[in-house]
Amino acid sequence: MKAFNDLGDFSDEEIQALVSLASRLDQHPEPDALKGKVLSLLFLSPSLRTLASFQAAMTRLGGGSFVISPDMSIHGLETRPGIVMDGAAAEHIREAVPVIASYGDAIGIRAFAERKSLEHDMAEVEFKSMTDLIDTPYINMESAMGHPCQNLADWKTMDDFNVPANGGKFVLSWAYHPKALPLAVPASTLYTAARRGMDVTVLQPEGFELPEAIVSRSRQAAEAAGGSLRESYDRTEALEGAHIVYAKSWSSTQHYGDRLADQKLRTGLEDWCVDEDWFDNAAEDCRFMHCLPVRRGVVVSERVLDGPRSIVIHEARNRMLAQMAVLHQMLGGQS
Amino acid sequence: MKAFNDLGDFSDEEIQALVSLASRLDQHPEPDALKGKVLSLLFLSPSLRTLASFQAAMTRLGGGSFVISPDMSIHGLETRPGIVMDGAAAEHIREAVPVIASYGDAIGIRAFAERKSLEHDMAEVEFKSMTDLIDTPYINMESAMGHPCQNLADWKTMDDFNVPANGGKFVLSWAYHPKALPLAVPASTLYTAARRGMDVTVLQPEGFELPEAIVSRSRQAAEAAGGSLRESYDRTEALEGAHIVYAKSWSSTQHYGDRLADQKLRTGLEDWCVDEDWFDNAAEDCRFMHCLPVRRGVVVSERVLDGPRSIVIHEARNRMLAQMAVLHQMLGGQS
Amino acid sequence: MKAFNDLGDFSDEEIQALVSLASRLDQHPEPDALKGKVLSLLFLSPSLRTLASFQAAMTRLGGGSFVISPDMSIHGLETRPGIVMDGAAAEHIREAVPVIASYGDAIGIRAFAERKSLEHDMAEVEFKSMTDLIDTPYINMESAMGHPCQNLADWKTMDDFNVPANGGKFVLSWAYHPKALPLAVPASTLYTAARRGMDVTVLQPEGFELPEAIVSRSRQAAEAAGGSLRESYDRTEALEGAHIVYAKSWSSTQHYGDRLADQKLRTGLEDWCVDEDWFDNAAEDCRFMHCLPVRRGVVVSERVLDGPRSIVIHEARNRMLAQMAVLHQMLGGQS
Repeated sequence: MKAFNDLGDFSDEEIQALVSLASRLDQHPEPDALKGKVLSLLFLSPSLRTLASFQAAMTRLGGGSFVISPDMSIHGLETRPGIVMDGAAAEHIREAVPVIASYGDAIGIRAFAERKSLEHDMAEVEFKSMTDLIDTPYINMESAMGHPCQNLADWKTMDDFNVPANGGKFVLSWAYHPKALPLAVPASTLYTAARRGMDVTVLQPEGFELPEAIVSRSRQAAEAAGGSLRESYDRTEALEGAHIVYAKSWSSTQHYGDRLADQKLRTGLEDWCVDEDWFDNAAEDCRFMHCLPVRRGVVVSERVLDGPRSIVIHEARNRMLAQMAVLHQMLGGQS
Repeated sequence: MKAFNDLGDFSDEEIQALVSLASRLDQHPEPDALKGKVLSLLFLSPSLRTLASFQAAMTRLGGGSFVISPDMSIHGLETRPGIVMDGAAAEHIREAVPVIASYGDAIGIRAFAERKSLEHDMAEVEFKSMTDLIDTPYINMESAMGHPCQNLADWKTMDDFNVPANGGKFVLSWAYHPKALPLAVPASTLYTAARRGMDVTVLQPEGFELPEAIVSRSRQAAEAAGGSLRESYDRTEALEGAHIVYAKSWSSTQHYGDRLADQKLRTGLEDWCVDEDWFDNAAEDCRFMHCLPVRRGVVVSERVLDGPRSIVIHEARNRMLAQMAVLHQMLGGQS
Repeated sequence: MKAFNDLGDFSDEEIQALVSLASRLDQHPEPDALKGKVLSLLFLSPSLRTLASFQAAMTRLGGGSFVISPDMSIHGLETRPGIVMDGAAAEHIREAVPVIASYGDAIGIRAFAERKSLEHDMAEVEFKSMTDLIDTPYINMESAMGHPCQNLADWKTMDDFNVPANGGKFVLSWAYHPKALPLAVPASTLYTAARRGMDVTVLQPEGFELPEAIVSRSRQAAEAAGGSLRESYDRTEALEGAHIVYAKSWSSTQHYGDRLADQKLRTGLEDWCVDEDWFDNAAEDCRFMHCLPVRRGVVVSERVLDGPRSIVIHEARNRMLAQMAVLHQMLGGQS
């Protein structure tokens, strides 16, 4: 595997093989699998789960990793192309990325959306400007529009809880948050549920529709897999019969990059906080999922988050297992 | 071992087994003992020895670790219960602790006292609020009132230097420091020397008596082990015949959480800086111990700290060895 | 090996053995060589390559490392001798260095020049004040005047590209930079090229001559090895026939520690930015080297840095391999 960047690059069989491998490595540890192998980890955006789970994953497989982030004891990093570097930054990403990559057998890169232009972010200009510099196998640890490690962990989580693929109802619901958040998780989660063949509903308030290209790509994937995809503004009908409520806040596509307009649009939407009554007409064993971090009492109520529906900790642990599977296939040698 | 939280949870035989194991692992390395095992390290308070020695300990046993602290490249952490998270912090400790724990085979947690209410801190409300969230084996890396890794290292240090248990005289002396420091080290050190069966004296200026519950628990332990415990305000008589002078500054229990009143009380106590003349009537080979970090020329004079009595570096190295023993018993499986 | 501090401490055979070992470890990994061994890494100055490459090196050899730097979650570090520590810093380097060293089988220390007094820095007072405190084997990860890991990597890089030793022409050229930079890289690079027996030219503007002691030591080394060393102010004649242009900015020795006077002297020298026309009369396959980080458009033009002459990424990767060789010899025991 040369890159783990998008579930769309993999066949159903390949995805299932990764999910199975993740479970197998949980049951049957392989502490010699990646002996002496190094994963370089470059964090241009903050992280907790990703930071911890990748380090743990490499240790469990017998290798190791190192972390570079701009807030560490390093020289400032410049990212703008073609610039005369006479300011504060002492190093350009054009050297930093290849150098960091050269110390590892693979590199993980995390770089959130710039969020000035939707077109720019949809084209993954930032992320590709870095991966274009290297030949080393790489892992997308969250880019402008993708979060494949989260997606694979979510897929495994639904398998673990026997959530039906065909016939399973997946509701991706917008939730309130004081800030305009990136599209990476909602966009790639929508595609993931669709690829799994589920009946997917995106529930959102007016003005928070996801970009058309993302919705149509996911709809095609759903239909090809025996599922469906629709959008809804009506909480009651959207949640009826749901097996999964996957909550996430995201910014308004209409006002992409315009924080003030986005702020105005979300004012008054504070009741988009997932609470017990959201599950009144859901399937009896309907589960609550979220990629974390999550704001208690804002995105979801304490009673839902701390209650039996919530599988967010299991989901977060699956990040480590999913990444172990990816690393095992990418660096395992014999594979 | 499900938790390493307090020496009081262990029998004398268990403590001696840990001390022996620490020495054995120093003499006979076991670089495969914890192959593929992961220790999660959560630092809510600053650290140098703990940070370094736990990472080194896991490497020496063939495993690994990862570090999470709020000053790293992570989202802000909220600790208050029941709060609506509409401020700066993006993640609550109620998710962060179980998630971090889930990536490890054990977790170490460091969280100093809040130091608003003595009762609250004596009850370890903060620390327990975190360990209550997890089933993972855990290690107390310093809490409001405990520092068991330091205690075990100190026990081994005294054994290494052949300091007598029964009949050995241990003086825990308050020392001057510009700030009001936590009670974790003095409280748990007092108990440790007592459990070792030593004749223990707490030497302190007026107003700096340790909490009654701590003193009486330690006195009972001392008497049960064939030792004794007394408090003194008189440096000359307290230090007579001492085998160990263990210096530490701590805050006034009377003015707990009231920094101004504590400040006033310690003004004029600058001569509580351990110097050579403190040892005039001590045992000839009396040793100076301190958990570090220590302020030179404030808590202890340079000539004592750099002189032959000082065993603080040996003591600090024993942190690593003591923790290796704990980790080996906690995670080694077959042991 | 008790210390890796200066190529001058090693015979030609020893240097060649290290370079060969570095290549061998690249071709034939030894992931069990340093099983269970720990490298302590103390960064008192910022870093990217050193931070990443040492961690990667230890992992590749089966051991591990930990990093301590003052901007981490530790207590402030005091470095001044003989001070009464009643200020902000809670720990003195006199305890911190021996303690950190005691957790490792070796320690790497990085501490840039103080740059107040040239004599003081030439004597490596800062760095020696730390290594004098320990018996642990140590590695200089860049001091006031030395950067032996870079030097060994550069030696290997020239070997990799078949740059002739005797008869090879090495130009160390001053380059413009908005700040007065340390002498460690130019001083130790000059000696390295000289030790390799090359015909070395130092190219610099007036006032940026390297310290006489450094130049004469390097000249002796060059002559002993069948090479030569000269200084030049004339770019055209200096670059003629060059096999290597090694660019680096450094502060004015004349105004050492006086940043204003240095600033004034470098004003107007912005054309000391290595560009394609510098190579007009160089050897056809002349290579561009730099230790990184490098400021694009300031020290070197984009077309040179991104062009085929530039071997800076290969050079940076050799840092890891060179350090693996040093660590293997220092800690490998049986080798």
